[in-house]
Amino acid sequence: MENETVILTGRSLTLEEVEKVSRKGAKVEVSSEAIQTLKDARQLVYDLANSDVPIYGFNTGVGWNKDKRVMKEFFQQYNTNLIHSHCVAVTPEASIEEVRAVLLVRLNTLLLGCTGIQPEIALMYMEMLNRGVTPVLPERGSVGEADIACLSHIGLAMIGEGDAYFQGVKMSAKEALSKAGLDPVVLGPKDGLAIVSSNALSAGEGVLVVRDIEKLLDIADMVYSLSLEGLNGNTSPLDPKTHEIRPFPGQAFSAERISKYIEGSYIYEPNWKKPVQDPLSFRSAAHIHGAVRDALEYLKKYLTIQINSSDDNPCLILDERRIVSCSNFEVTNWVLGFEMIGIALSHVSKASCYRTIKLSNNEFTKLSRFLAPANNVIAYGTIQKAFTSLDAEIRHLSNPATTDFFSLAGEIEDHANNSPYVVQKTRKIVDNLLYILGIEALHSVQAIDLRTDITLGKGTKKAYKIIREKIPFYSEDRNLTIDIQKIYEILKDDKFIGEIMKAVELF
Amino acid sequence: MENETVILTGRSLTLEEVEKVSRKGAKVEVSSEAIQTLKDARQLVYDLANSDVPIYGFNTGVGWNKDKRVMKEFFQQYNTNLIHSHCVAVTPEASIEEVRAVLLVRLNTLLLGCTGIQPEIALMYMEMLNRGVTPVLPERGSVGEADIACLSHIGLAMIGEGDAYFQGVKMSAKEALSKAGLDPVVLGPKDGLAIVSSNALSAGEGVLVVRDIEKLLDIADMVYSLSLEGLNGNTSPLDPKTHEIRPFPGQAFSAERISKYIEGSYIYEPNWKKPVQDPLSFRSAAHIHGAVRDALEYLKKYLTIQINSSDDNPCLILDERRIVSCSNFEVTNWVLGFEMIGIALSHVSKASCYRTIKLSNNEFTKLSRFLAPANNVIAYGTIQKAFTSLDAEIRHLSNPATTDFFSLAGEIEDHANNSPYVVQKTRKIVDNLLYILGIEALHSVQAIDLRTDITLGKGTKKAYKIIREKIPFYSEDRNLTIDIQKIYEILKDDKFIGEIMKAVELF
Amino acid sequence: MENETVILTGRSLTLEEVEKVSRKGAKVEVSSEAIQTLKDARQLVYDLANSDVPIYGFNTGVGWNKDKRVMKEFFQQYNTNLIHSHCVAVTPEASIEEVRAVLLVRLNTLLLGCTGIQPEIALMYMEMLNRGVTPVLPERGSVGEADIACLSHIGLAMIGEGDAYFQGVKMSAKEALSKAGLDPVVLGPKDGLAIVSSNALSAGEGVLVVRDIEKLLDIADMVYSLSLEGLNGNTSPLDPKTHEIRPFPGQAFSAERISKYIEGSYIYEPNWKKPVQDPLSFRSAAHIHGAVRDALEYLKKYLTIQINSSDDNPCLILDERRIVSCSNFEVTNWVLGFEMIGIALSHVSKASCYRTIKLSNNEFTKLSRFLAPANNVIAYGTIQKAFTSLDAEIRHLSNPATTDFFSLAGEIEDHANNSPYVVQKTRKIVDNLLYILGIEALHSVQAIDLRTDITLGKGTKKAYKIIREKIPFYSEDRNLTIDIQKIYEILKDDKFIGEIMKAVELF
Amino acid sequence: MENETVILTGRSLTLEEVEKVSRKGAKVEVSSEAIQTLKDARQLVYDLANSDVPIYGFNTGVGWNKDKRVMKEFFQQYNTNLIHSHCVAVTPEASIEEVRAVLLVRLNTLLLGCTGIQPEIALMYMEMLNRGVTPVLPERGSVGEADIACLSHIGLAMIGEGDAYFQGVKMSAKEALSKAGLDPVVLGPKDGLAIVSSNALSAGEGVLVVRDIEKLLDIADMVYSLSLEGLNGNTSPLDPKTHEIRPFPGQAFSAERISKYIEGSYIYEPNWKKPVQDPLSFRSAAHIHGAVRDALEYLKKYLTIQINSSDDNPCLILDERRIVSCSNFEVTNWVLGFEMIGIALSHVSKASCYRTIKLSNNEFTKLSRFLAPANNVIAYGTIQKAFTSLDAEIRHLSNPATTDFFSLAGEIEDHANNSPYVVQKTRKIVDNLLYILGIEALHSVQAIDLRTDITLGKGTKKAYKIIREKIPFYSEDRNLTIDIQKIYEILKDDKFIGEIMKAVELF
Repeated sequence: MENETVILTGRSLTLEEVEKVSRKGAKVEVSSEAIQTLKDARQLVYDLANSDVPIYGFNTGVGWNKDKRVMKEFFQQYNTNLIHSHCVAVTPEASIEEVRAVLLVRLNTLLLGCTGIQPEIALMYMEMLNRGVTPVLPERGSVGEADIACLSHIGLAMIGEGDAYFQGVKMSAKEALSKAGLDPVVLGPKDGLAIVSSNALSAGEGVLVVRDIEKLLDIADMVYSLSLEGLNGNTSPLDPKTHEIRPFPGQAFSAERISKYIEGSYIYEPNWKKPVQDPLSFRSAAHIHGAVRDALEYLKKYLTIQINSSDDNPCLILDERRIVSCSNFEVTNWVLGFEMIGIALSHVSKASCYRTIKLSNNEFTKLSRFLAPANNVIAYGTIQKAFTSLDAEIRHLSNPATTDFFSLAGEIEDHANNSPYVVQKTRKIVDNLLYILGIEALHSVQAIDLRTDITLGKGTKKAYKIIREKIPFYSEDRNLTIDIQKIYEILKDDKFIGEIMKAVELF
Repeated sequence: MENETVILTGRSLTLEEVEKVSRKGAKVEVSSEAIQTLKDARQLVYDLANSDVPIYGFNTGVGWNKDKRVMKEFFQQYNTNLIHSHCVAVTPEASIEEVRAVLLVRLNTLLLGCTGIQPEIALMYMEMLNRGVTPVLPERGSVGEADIACLSHIGLAMIGEGDAYFQGVKMSAKEALSKAGLDPVVLGPKDGLAIVSSNALSAGEGVLVVRDIEKLLDIADMVYSLSLEGLNGNTSPLDPKTHEIRPFPGQAFSAERISKYIEGSYIYEPNWKKPVQDPLSFRSAAHIHGAVRDALEYLKKYLTIQINSSDDNPCLILDERRIVSCSNFEVTNWVLGFEMIGIALSHVSKASCYRTIKLSNNEFTKLSRFLAPANNVIAYGTIQKAFTSLDAEIRHLSNPATTDFFSLAGEIEDHANNSPYVVQKTRKIVDNLLYILGIEALHSVQAIDLRTDITLGKGTKKAYKIIREKIPFYSEDRNLTIDIQKIYEILKDDKFIGEIMKAVELF
Repeated sequence: MENETVILTGRSLTLEEVEKVSRKGAKVEVSSEAIQTLKDARQLVYDLANSDVPIYGFNTGVGWNKDKRVMKEFFQQYNTNLIHSHCVAVTPEASIEEVRAVLLVRLNTLLLGCTGIQPEIALMYMEMLNRGVTPVLPERGSVGEADIACLSHIGLAMIGEGDAYFQGVKMSAKEALSKAGLDPVVLGPKDGLAIVSSNALSAGEGVLVVRDIEKLLDIADMVYSLSLEGLNGNTSPLDPKTHEIRPFPGQAFSAERISKYIEGSYIYEPNWKKPVQDPLSFRSAAHIHGAVRDALEYLKKYLTIQINSSDDNPCLILDERRIVSCSNFEVTNWVLGFEMIGIALSHVSKASCYRTIKLSNNEFTKLSRFLAPANNVIAYGTIQKAFTSLDAEIRHLSNPATTDFFSLAGEIEDHANNSPYVVQKTRKIVDNLLYILGIEALHSVQAIDLRTDITLGKGTKKAYKIIREKIPFYSEDRNLTIDIQKIYEILKDDKFIGEIMKAVELF
Repeated sequence: MENETVILTGRSLTLEEVEKVSRKGAKVEVSSEAIQTLKDARQLVYDLANSDVPIYGFNTGVGWNKDKRVMKEFFQQYNTNLIHSHCVAVTPEASIEEVRAVLLVRLNTLLLGCTGIQPEIALMYMEMLNRGVTPVLPERGSVGEADIACLSHIGLAMIGEGDAYFQGVKMSAKEALSKAGLDPVVLGPKDGLAIVSSNALSAGEGVLVVRDIEKLLDIADMVYSLSLEGLNGNTSPLDPKTHEIRPFPGQAFSAERISKYIEGSYIYEPNWKKPVQDPLSFRSAAHIHGAVRDALEYLKKYLTIQINSSDDNPCLILDERRIVSCSNFEVTNWVLGFEMIGIALSHVSKASCYRTIKLSNNEFTKLSRFLAPANNVIAYGTIQKAFTSLDAEIRHLSNPATTDFFSLAGEIEDHANNSPYVVQKTRKIVDNLLYILGIEALHSVQAIDLRTDITLGKGTKKAYKIIREKIPFYSEDRNLTIDIQKIYEILKDDKFIGEIMKAVELF
């Protein structure tokens, strides 16, 4: 994908493209129309300033200091001061992938021409992305309402201060720029504000989390499919007719996916010994995953608007040649989506845990207790503590954090939403859930092995194979901490779901 | 509205109609097509049972007892036992309005013909609604996944046991039916299950809460408008162009509404003494209210599906003449919406509190401290504790509750979502928020009064008048507990926002 | 107990005495020493004021208005204004019992002589208590740091405004005073502040909640004892030696109690069919209840200090004849105790729920599923939803609320603790838990009945008898909503645990 | 301290000693009496087993497998299997210091002779500590009720499997043992259980967190003292008399400490321009810190019992020569303490944030806005977002997590408390709070600098000096991310508070 190029217009960036650029090394290019917009906007800001109107952050201070005037001869100094004094972030660093997503999102929204930033600085984002210069960006310190405390570090690197990665190696920003053949930028009026005043940190990290949730849901559907085969469970809750009657879109989607995965499986064979109804964690899996898919749609919809619209204040209205003070940095609507999705994922986690518990219970599987391969093997007993303890963390993290803020800056900034933290706690939920689903998968393939001679579905067969290539049958007691880490890494790798999709011809 | 009639088809019920029937006394009528569907379904269930297939809840027990067979001669007895043993609810009672909503929702979803209930019993819901018989229904005791522990009380009243209201008076159900000219029903096979196995409690109560949130948002926009005039604030964040650039639908909607309310107001007059930017609680009001509107759309969409689709298990597939075991009682997707909206409303609450604090701060208003009308009057000082303490409750209630459940019924029922409690805590949030917005309104009209000789907007003028008719200017210290209760009741009354809408020609 | 009299000194009030006065009608008397202290303090405040020192709330305004001076001739007016403007409370009303606790606590702390209140007003609290005048006091509106928004209503009644109960009947305060043979008070300097500036609302309500928790723990130990007999469980975790080895005081206490209750029970008989170890909900009951007892000790210790020390600001130092500005209205330490106890009770709830689930599981009891008395009876199946849904509420309520506050009064009051709400949510937890333990008790007596011919313990025998007198054996399916309410009321009645204590000679 | 030796008896270990050994390299020695106890216990277990009594985990399986018998010839194999199958932990690793604390705590409680472990294995803990062998121990995976999923990794290292650190370098456990001159142990009966079945992970990590909180409170008192000087605030709330009148022990302690720190300060000078009362975040600091001190006492008391008593099941009663099944692995009482302290620290955090906000507000300080040293410097504006965002995390982390558990192991393990996670989230709270207090300190020293020519107190002078040695006066805008990290490290270093204590002669 390194040869792919994403063309940016300010209005057409997809979540998938953000991932391509940030994680897969795709290049970016700014459309010529967008470059013209940048130039027009820069000109407008000068024209307005010449008419001596106070323009927030251009010829005035920012925040509580909006009552202070900034004189022309101090533009560079003031903007450098602004970058410096806004560097108030706290460890840990965002990952290189995340910072790239941040750079991309900010670049795209700059192209709408609402800031009046120097075009050269806008293009610096592009160069950094394409040449592999990634500023070091501590990810804590912002309460949302623009992530100014953190994004400042991008400005810092652009002027050749602070640290940055070049091709994955950490060094001084100055050196990184130089190795990349770039000169530090010279800040002019409004540039400081344009760099820092954006929600690109939470939006950029958020996009990657959303992408990961999408994959997680595919994985969850897959792991559930394996478990259904491990249990020898009922397929009637997947009946398409029942989803027609109950038209929640997500549940029909998941049910269809799962049906694809288990196509051809032995579980479709009539078997009078099966109980009529399995535990709800099995029976309702498509419904629960579907509910999360519905919730995710909400989030995707608004996050896509976010990365293709201006969150700038003040905001240039190019076609009307004016500048307006506004509140477009408000991101509460999609922060709410992240809060909802965290709670939603807690349901996925609970259901996975309960399925795993059932898989180790001989009453339900009619296999051995704890899926032990022999009488003197202890097997999957204590592991129940591992995945349920991770679920307890998820439950804890799913508590909301968005409304816990202070009134700041002389009581002027009396609303916030903690967007970065909300995104980051969701990221942690997703990571924990990968472990939980991984442990479920360990159980389901073990249960499958204990049922000798069964035919798996088209997708589950593939999944089984990928897992068993790296993690052998549990034939005697061994250090499971290692298996847990392995299965986590298998699921985390895009290849896992990718190969399955190929197997079921969904790609 | 008592003369209005809502025709039910099972597929076309709106949230507004639920309110009309439950709160305004509209009558209901079942479409003839739906009656035929009920009959066909009843016949199908008999046909299937005759073919000796075990049908869950028809000729088998329910829940963990699904392995037990029920013989024909015990159908009435078993179904009565089922109703009795499912009466396991806990105080307090749902309100009459709420129980009516529950009856209506259950009636409508029965019409889809997925249960095979006796048509006579389905029509009993209609009769109860139309003749004013309302079973006493304690509202706690259900964990979602069908509100069987509570809905049983409707069955109880139908067989003439327990208590009910007739025309608003509590009496024995037997007497209520008799006064209404109705005979108790005789339960046959599957009737017990059809009565109890539905999410109609949480859906019914939920619809009313959603209706209340819709009104609350209109009120919030209105109260903010008054406050903007009380503060003499800036209107630039309402600029339609800024919402075009940032196309989150809710914020544009709220901004437009607010602009209507303040049309013609003095605050549009140029005033160089105004600060460029007001505190965010003012500046971002449309954005915050809009974010909640966006979240509410999510909830409305799925709740509308809920009340127009079958949540029954097992589910009759009439056109294919079969019955399927399924999990359509899962309501996680809209329960997530309620969790999200609770958090969203916490933002509305915070912003209202901060605006009120600003209105009592002379630094921001340039009026007197605490809006005191004279030097020896204490005025709105301590009241800050009142509304912020209500906000603390909202913050507390906005924590999620949906994933805290047990594995029940021999570990078979290992998923739940606590839908009734989630709805009920949201109801409480809405009620608290009405008080908070009410107290904001007390402040804003006081601030308006302290600014002599100003012209209010088209809508705000009306709102001001309605409030001041019942609550006079605060000219000397008086018992504010009374004013708080009064303003709460003014806002709660549909007439408040109704008359304003008329004034701004939105109705 | 109505003939009993509690002598108040300001330093010796116990939690038990608060309950006696508030709930059992005991009279109060102020020690003569304390009356002298009141007089000395009043004199001191006059002496200091004459020396023209500004004394907060005496000759100055309060809160943000502390910079305003109050002149002698306006003392009555100002103090009346203060009462009026501090009446900013919100429904619902505190119960009569609770308001009596509030009156008592405030009276006792006034006796320390730190306020300089008119002695006549202090004695008015005593008269109100002794003559049965109870002001109507809406219980919401305070954020802690003194419950000024609510306690003002006591002042209101004292000056003959607002409403009050006389001997349990609601009427105007004026009428209530008159019927009680009391004259309204005339407010002088500092009286308003002394009346409102206290944490007596949260402390008073808190004491009653703490008393209820103490009883609840006794009930929990008792219900567990019944369940142990219902299960035919193991007594080894009660072995005193194991508690010597693990010297957490609470668990030893509970273990001893339980051992007393089951003295002589059949479960001590050797029985080789018992499993070695019961589920943890049984095995760890004494440990869990004990942990809550330990936590409760924390709370009792500091709450006792609270009701016997001054929380006044400013604070008169009588022996040094000076007045100091201080922060003694801070009650964070015992509010923390309430937060902890809520979480602790969530453990009690969980354990009770799990025991009840086990009692209805034939695998564990070797009795019938759901404790059904016969094959065609459904019995305790759906009831699982009832108690677990109440547990979900407890889990939700156990989230903390103490740190969610605003910065008020011109940013001066930038700390709070929400003490009333924290107490009130704990009260709700206790109430829910009574239902949960009640439902467990329904199960345990049913299980006991299904084991024919067993000998119960000394205490459990009594408990069984009290319950079975009002709630018969569940021999056929019946409306359990009624049984749930009955058992709740049985447990709530002090007689239940009282008679058991007599039976085991603990009283 | 590396030359110091702590003598272990099983009954006398202090929290401070745990820190000495784990962090400062003190050596440990087991008392000869304790060694004899170990031997006696081992003998007893053999004697009992010979009498053919089933002994849980000795000649039976553990958990749900307690119904399985283990034969003598399989003792080593079974115990190795047990260690293997209990290795089910999840990243990240506990720190070396923490693992050392875990080793020490487990060693000490083994000395009580309740397990019957091989004395050689008990002494292996000592050798590992003294020779610097530290097993790699992933810290997640346990739900409390003994941290078996994690502690297994200690057993793994002891038998020469898995990884370990030797003198700080990671290598295979085998190599580490060999470098340390130790042979792997050979597991015999009951050894596996004795190694894994303990709460030593949560207790060990917990002790270090408690020690850090103790220091944090000293730091908080110190930073507050600096801020009081920065503000030129009032000292009257520190008046000892007011704390006599209000005898909560913690507040008096903090008030005294603070008074020591500011002894001799200019703020004691009479100054009529000071407002009578400072904001509560200043006025109530000693009370809030004191409340946390009181809460901490609770935790210290019970944690000290924990590390000096047996949490083993089954439990040998040496003097009565029997073995009892019990539930002494229950740690709910001190887990509750951690939940409480988390909420308590949230109060400390809120108060620090509010003080910092005040320090940057010229209205309160009468200094420049944001403590800017000159008009063209932006200074401490945006930094408000940094510390308040960290507070939002603390608020989030302070939600309880202890009651979110599943029923495991065939429904036998139906209680848990999530002790490790509760401890770990508290650790995170403490870490965040160090940053917050650090940022407050940056403000207070800047405010102090802006007040030229003032005399600081005995302790604050020292603190000021230590800080200013590393972080110069903020004279022009600079990258504050660096300053934030620096001040965090200064405060974290024991030397900071140590040198201050010396300066005020408290050590």
